[in-house]
Amino acid sequence: MVQKVVEMNIVIIGFGNIGRSVAKVISEKDLGLEIVGIADRDGCIVKENTPLDVMDIVETVEKTKKLSSHPLTKTDMTTNDLIDSVDADLFVEMTPTNIENGEPGLSFMRRILNRKKHLVTSNKGPLVIAYRELTDLAKENKVLFRCGATIGGAIPILSLIRSGLSGNKITKIKGILNGTTNYILTKMFEGKSFDYTLKEAQELGIAETNPTYDIEGIDIGAKLVVLANELGLNTGFNNVKIEGIKNITKEDIENAKKEDKVIKLIGEISKNSAEVSPQLISKNDSLAVDGTLNAIKIECDLAKEITLIGHGAGEETASAIIGDILEIKKVIENENKSNNF
Amino acid sequence: MVQKVVEMNIVIIGFGNIGRSVAKVISEKDLGLEIVGIADRDGCIVKENTPLDVMDIVETVEKTKKLSSHPLTKTDMTTNDLIDSVDADLFVEMTPTNIENGEPGLSFMRRILNRKKHLVTSNKGPLVIAYRELTDLAKENKVLFRCGATIGGAIPILSLIRSGLSGNKITKIKGILNGTTNYILTKMFEGKSFDYTLKEAQELGIAETNPTYDIEGIDIGAKLVVLANELGLNTGFNNVKIEGIKNITKEDIENAKKEDKVIKLIGEISKNSAEVSPQLISKNDSLAVDGTLNAIKIECDLAKEITLIGHGAGEETASAIIGDILEIKKVIENENKSNNF
Repeated sequence: MVQKVVEMNIVIIGFGNIGRSVAKVISEKDLGLEIVGIADRDGCIVKENTPLDVMDIVETVEKTKKLSSHPLTKTDMTTNDLIDSVDADLFVEMTPTNIENGEPGLSFMRRILNRKKHLVTSNKGPLVIAYRELTDLAKENKVLFRCGATIGGAIPILSLIRSGLSGNKITKIKGILNGTTNYILTKMFEGKSFDYTLKEAQELGIAETNPTYDIEGIDIGAKLVVLANELGLNTGFNNVKIEGIKNITKEDIENAKKEDKVIKLIGEISKNSAEVSPQLISKNDSLAVDGTLNAIKIECDLAKEITLIGHGAGEETASAIIGDILEIKKVIENENKSNNF
Repeated sequence: MVQKVVEMNIVIIGFGNIGRSVAKVISEKDLGLEIVGIADRDGCIVKENTPLDVMDIVETVEKTKKLSSHPLTKTDMTTNDLIDSVDADLFVEMTPTNIENGEPGLSFMRRILNRKKHLVTSNKGPLVIAYRELTDLAKENKVLFRCGATIGGAIPILSLIRSGLSGNKITKIKGILNGTTNYILTKMFEGKSFDYTLKEAQELGIAETNPTYDIEGIDIGAKLVVLANELGLNTGFNNVKIEGIKNITKEDIENAKKEDKVIKLIGEISKNSAEVSPQLISKNDSLAVDGTLNAIKIECDLAKEITLIGHGAGEETASAIIGDILEIKKVIENENKSNNF
């Protein structure tokens, strides 16, 4: 067996679907990363003398749904204890999103940044509540903070804006940023009722038991807040005008079809506005994607229009997390390399 | 007027449409870039004591089609003279593509890299002929070399693969990589004949007077060679199986329509093959874009599928050139910053 070269120690906070996907990728791929700690609500695992058998931990949790089922779990160790004590370079915060007050993620993030550790997150709650505070805290502590996975799942929208489209002035971003509602609307265009489709989506695990955040556009509104702030706009959740998909009638759908259009729940931001609303979209438009796919169109001065289409949720989100981790790793390596001159 | 802070001196080789678009952007935007030299086949302009009035030069050439019409042009100075003598940090090579022998771009590129200058290009000819030689030459001379504009015009595909999708194993890339043929096919699906549409495209400036490279799939084949090499595959032009759009019949189109499909000229690479051919694509597929748009689908292990749609040619290509220049600038700045530790 080839010995992996480890250049960066990673801690995972939140061991749900995405957390486990990220853990699997780090464990299986030779990316120069090693997991040295895992925290979930019922305890923590910390690497001691030998590397953690991450795949074994993942399997245990997939069977039992509890981190504490694994023999290495310290049930008396809190996530805060772990953050304060573990020897790590970077934390990945993936606890469940809460856009009421950002907790528990917000407190974890503050603690991680104050410990001067790099931070990657998929959790938009804390960013909706305290984007500026958290990015300022990262700057003060001279660490890097990336949140690409909070918008569009696997679609590397923030990375694209930062790298490939640098030099462009972005004038508008609009898109389908929620797979659940896109699935429901797609089925409604196939003739199914809203209630029937919602039930089906819940059975398939596409919609949550309480689908309010998705259906009412709140999830997209939260993503727009993060996106706007990443673009340097000082947009709060209260600045976003939000309308969900509950008022779309059978008649609306028939009328759309007559015009060769579809109805999509669109999030849209420009310099002066942020809005979530159902919009009529031409069937030929690059945003007219179906099923659970997400699509994001960036309008800008040089490239004019770039559309990105991909999986907006689920285990594919691990791609964005890993991309962010490797971007931070590259920056650090460049710094270290230059230090050796 | 706010004084621009110039951190990087740029030379432009090739002052056609894209060259002038890039010059305009550098001149108008505050990107920390200054143009200190311009070369075209009929002479060179070099900055002497005062900054060049780039917009004035652009306007003159747009009126007269000749760089030599501008009073600052030295008609006895060759591009080689300019490369050898000018005080610059980075060259942008944008001479016309020649995939027979790569010239004149190939010789210019060798010369630029041997002078230990960073290089950005939109010219795929030299890369088809000598990808490995040029990238090795850049490494030897410790300079950076970027060619994002050679594939997909404004679509930042290479940047996305390098940044946003890092960590992913890419298994296949397929897409519409030529706007001219996509325009022709779109019109053919609207009922127009190939000959009629080609003539119309030529009148609109979408197709060239000699459209062979586009129609026969050679342009896409060349792009696949660059893309494959960027992915680390050692693919030469002779390894690419190429079929153009000339054999597509009215009957093919009618049959496609019956299945709710379209025919697109698709370039496709995987580990073991590179191929250009007309393919039946479902109307619902994210690649089913019309007109002159390009679309590229990346299949990979983590994100599964990401599609990028945008303008594959024309002045929008300046976006990719500027993106590459700014990426190099960022790397250099990071190195310099770290040197100051």
